[in-house]
Amino acid sequence: MTDTPARMRRLVSEATKDGALELRIEEVDTPRPGPGELLIKLEAAPVNPSDLALLVGPAVPEEGAREGDTLSMPVPEQAQAFLSTRLGQKLGAGNEGAGTVVAASEGAPEGMIGKRVAAAGGDMYAEYRSVPMQLVMPLPESASARDGASSFVNPMTALSMTEVMKRDGSPALVHTAAASNLGQMLQRIAKKDGFPLINIVRSPKQQAILKDLGADYALNLKEESFMKELVAACDATGATVGFDAVGGGDLAGKIITAMEISQQKKMTEYSRYGSSVHKQVYVYGRLDLSEVRVPPSVGMAWGVGGFLLTNFLASISQEQRMAMAMRVASELTTTFASHYTGELTMDELLEPEAMAKCNAKATGTKYLLTF
Amino acid sequence: MTDTPARMRRLVSEATKDGALELRIEEVDTPRPGPGELLIKLEAAPVNPSDLALLVGPAVPEEGAREGDTLSMPVPEQAQAFLSTRLGQKLGAGNEGAGTVVAASEGAPEGMIGKRVAAAGGDMYAEYRSVPMQLVMPLPESASARDGASSFVNPMTALSMTEVMKRDGSPALVHTAAASNLGQMLQRIAKKDGFPLINIVRSPKQQAILKDLGADYALNLKEESFMKELVAACDATGATVGFDAVGGGDLAGKIITAMEISQQKKMTEYSRYGSSVHKQVYVYGRLDLSEVRVPPSVGMAWGVGGFLLTNFLASISQEQRMAMAMRVASELTTTFASHYTGELTMDELLEPEAMAKCNAKATGTKYLLTF
Repeated sequence: MTDTPARMRRLVSEATKDGALELRIEEVDTPRPGPGELLIKLEAAPVNPSDLALLVGPAVPEEGAREGDTLSMPVPEQAQAFLSTRLGQKLGAGNEGAGTVVAASEGAPEGMIGKRVAAAGGDMYAEYRSVPMQLVMPLPESASARDGASSFVNPMTALSMTEVMKRDGSPALVHTAAASNLGQMLQRIAKKDGFPLINIVRSPKQQAILKDLGADYALNLKEESFMKELVAACDATGATVGFDAVGGGDLAGKIITAMEISQQKKMTEYSRYGSSVHKQVYVYGRLDLSEVRVPPSVGMAWGVGGFLLTNFLASISQEQRMAMAMRVASELTTTFASHYTGELTMDELLEPEAMAKCNAKATGTKYLLTF
Repeated sequence: MTDTPARMRRLVSEATKDGALELRIEEVDTPRPGPGELLIKLEAAPVNPSDLALLVGPAVPEEGAREGDTLSMPVPEQAQAFLSTRLGQKLGAGNEGAGTVVAASEGAPEGMIGKRVAAAGGDMYAEYRSVPMQLVMPLPESASARDGASSFVNPMTALSMTEVMKRDGSPALVHTAAASNLGQMLQRIAKKDGFPLINIVRSPKQQAILKDLGADYALNLKEESFMKELVAACDATGATVGFDAVGGGDLAGKIITAMEISQQKKMTEYSRYGSSVHKQVYVYGRLDLSEVRVPPSVGMAWGVGGFLLTNFLASISQEQRMAMAMRVASELTTTFASHYTGELTMDELLEPEAMAKCNAKATGTKYLLTF
């Protein structure tokens, strides 16, 4: 730890009693690695939608104001209840990142010092972070910290979707907001693993992104023929599991309805309960914060539910988690490559305009923090 | 079969191409018991909500017209698509009923002839029905056909709810439309088995029905304090599983939100994803045919899904099914007693006014068909 400074800068997020969400750079003691931990000097960390939920949440960065090392953003009154359980708490941000190991606790493998690694576990928007070994993934020699910054959230989420598809017995997947970094990753996995993926997007441009990756199905939900095409895709693939990043609105309901229409065609006898084949949509994002709406046309054998990566990973075996992580490491710059709209420092992120851009949630837009 | 007539009357339901739903009494050959079947002379069969979905569905009995043995009910144009898969098919109705065994096929136990039994399997709105032995339940000597007519749907559904509660690891249940026949049954089971049941109803009268049965919780969703009381009940019981007969609207979402608020109180550390404890509402009815609406306040570990008795029974072992059926038989006139608003013959049911009354879906209203 000879070259490591005693103090470091990190980003914290705090909901205040007067209805604001504050982002602040604070100086704190550089952590020392605890038992079984590695100290990482961070070089790059992505700003994922899951990070924005904590950094911004219901606040309005466009109306924010910066003062020194603090960005203060107003929270609309009707949304303040959402933040009641975190009032006055300084929360570290950043689910994942990459950098170089600069120190190891006793018991940690010494050979790791100097190695470039990716890490998960939160609090990554900081110059240094001490991380339990099991949340650290060594990067291939050829990979930069930028290459490895997004090694956990999106790759593990995309791989988890394929695991759930297999577990639930579906021969194919439906995916929404599918031109995202995650969606493109999932399309590359589908191509490589040979399962049909039904991509749902909102524009011809997004359709083109997926077609360029060899997608068999890239449906535009704004077209009039959308439902017809979705049913036809379900007919052709037999998909009964979908992952939805949108959440609010009628999209999850439409997907299950299309699956149900398709499954009903296979029935030899009429049943007013519809098909007995279970159809499921997992809501893993809430790009739309309005209610998820499910119509009666889904039949009786249906489910909609939340999906959270950490809960899923806790439900599978250590062997399965390891196998997934090893696959990510070995295909990091191909299948699991991420693309960034731009790069920012912590300091630059405190500008209202920059924060608003990061928070735009336009498909395919993602920023990388560098340290 | 000496006394069995060669022809019999039965009720059929047919959706026609000109946008009507027709109920008709037709005369057909009396069935002969197939291998392993028993022929039952029916005496009583309930008109359950699940039967009404087939008999009436989206049609409007109030605007129906009777001509001879046919009742024709108009179907609103926007609802006709729901019936497209059953157009022109004559469908038998009646999920369950009770009567006397009058004939047995070879291989069926002869000692059954003359016995009073309950039966499931559909097509029970008929003078005779031949039923596979495994769908027949002998009634206790002291029980009449009226006592036994509702031995399957409600009792097995109520018991299934308690099985699902145990399977999903919840220490308590939430139930809506809870003053129904089924709800009262569930309250008696909860009392007997000693688990907390949180009943949700819509009026003080319905609250009183459940309080009279010894209910600890009978919440009126129309009162302003409803959400507060629901959260308090979740706090006290730890309930994470609910069964909802209403379906459409915000009730399922409110139940999961209350569970989530309650679970969050047990968290020692803030997480913007909310509690990691899974909270589930099963929609087993659609008294309200509008969309099921789930707000973001449910957190991430949540699920809403359809629940259909036959699908659930198919998912458990034969031993479990037998144990449930034996319990129903032994507590038929106590725990599993049903109450009827009135009795009707098939002929009387064809009157628009009678059909409308049966279809009213007012809690606690249920009619019995007699033959």
